[in-house]
Amino acid sequence: MPIIKVELMTPCSKDEKKKLIFELTKRTHDLLGIPAEKISVVLHDVISEDWGRAGYLSTHVDFEKVSRKLEMEKEE
Amino acid sequence: MPIIKVELMTPCSKDEKKKLIFELTKRTHDLLGIPAEKISVVLHDVISEDWGRAGYLSTHVDFEKVSRKLEMEKEE
Amino acid sequence: MPIIKVELMTPCSKDEKKKLIFELTKRTHDLLGIPAEKISVVLHDVISEDWGRAGYLSTHVDFEKVSRKLEMEKEE
Amino acid sequence: MPIIKVELMTPCSKDEKKKLIFELTKRTHDLLGIPAEKISVVLHDVISEDWGRAGYLSTHVDFEKVSRKLEMEKEE
Amino acid sequence: MPIIKVELMTPCSKDEKKKLIFELTKRTHDLLGIPAEKISVVLHDVISEDWGRAGYLSTHVDFEKVSRKLEMEKEE
Amino acid sequence: MPIIKVELMTPCSKDEKKKLIFELTKRTHDLLGIPAEKISVVLHDVISEDWGRAGYLSTHVDFEKVSRKLEMEKEE
Repeated sequence: MPIIKVELMTPCSKDEKKKLIFELTKRTHDLLGIPAEKISVVLHDVISEDWGRAGYLSTHVDFEKVSRKLEMEKEE
Repeated sequence: MPIIKVELMTPCSKDEKKKLIFELTKRTHDLLGIPAEKISVVLHDVISEDWGRAGYLSTHVDFEKVSRKLEMEKEE
Repeated sequence: MPIIKVELMTPCSKDEKKKLIFELTKRTHDLLGIPAEKISVVLHDVISEDWGRAGYLSTHVDFEKVSRKLEMEKEE
Repeated sequence: MPIIKVELMTPCSKDEKKKLIFELTKRTHDLLGIPAEKISVVLHDVISEDWGRAGYLSTHVDFEKVSRKLEMEKEE
Repeated sequence: MPIIKVELMTPCSKDEKKKLIFELTKRTHDLLGIPAEKISVVLHDVISEDWGRAGYLSTHVDFEKVSRKLEMEKEE
Repeated sequence: MPIIKVELMTPCSKDEKKKLIFELTKRTHDLLGIPAEKISVVLHDVISEDWGRAGYLSTHVDFEKVSRKLEMEKEE
């Protein structure tokens, strides 16, 4: 304990994962004074067709715009 | 916020996933009055040999029946 | 209910998964008196480069030792 | 299966929860043709000081604005 | 690793939790040959109004029956 | 996306939570080049009687020692 779980949609290299695990662990260790050996990090890659925001799949051609909508439209 | 996570064992097409994300977002938006842009949906596909009920793997030939058992039997 | 989720890094055969689901369900059933049909188990395989401890990736050549460190070192 | 988990920060009444569970189940049932009895919904209330976006706690006085920042500022 | 997370709706005493943690760990250890010190168990209590099945809240007066429905009815 | 979830057993002040959310977001932003507004952090406090390691509840008087055991003992 603690367990840090990260759901990622950005494809990461093994080196980026290694650094991310190091950094998240180090900041938690430094801030909360928890021994390093007690901190676990688990990464989960989420593919782009498994994630949506504002009702739109992240693969939508205009996702940056539609994912900021406040109101829901009618079903397409 | 909110974050809606769905663990699925039924294989879904990309179109079904798109519609599912839309529908779950829309109902949450309509019911709770939360702006659409604040609602995320994450889907997780679970393969059939990673899920069980009543102690039986979902690939069991008679899963519909055994998964409704109330009592546990001896280990096979 | 209950839902038992197991994140595993050890590769398991289908037979091991079947037995694990049976055992975890049976113990929960026996201990808490919950009908078997109400107990679900979901397994998640985590690949070795998606998990770390003490800031080190589990693929580190000396993971058994470094994952027991109490203090964090400087970034490599 | 499926299991739908919703992490909520908006306080909901019991009646809203009841309706949310009904709606999320119904849409999943209608869209994917999954028998209703196989669909579970679990809600998790997250308190406002346990959630942040863009590095800011959701209790920040100007959260709507700061949570849309693209760049991280220096540590305060 | 592994991390075993159990979402429970049945109220459990501290002694039941202690035994449940022991049993789930022991079976995983025995079956998969994983050192005990690598196995974590985390329990999450879910209150009855935060869980539903087949579209019905678990506090429904006739939950045992309605939660076994195959078809969804119209919204009440 | 990404969603960073932290299960914590160490009681944290609101100020520590605020700093933790900032730090975890900043490192992820810096390392992966993801816009800050896309990064969410959710904290979950786990009470001490809901967490165990090596089969022992974290409230065990000698937890530091017993939680490092490799072999499981007989049920107490």
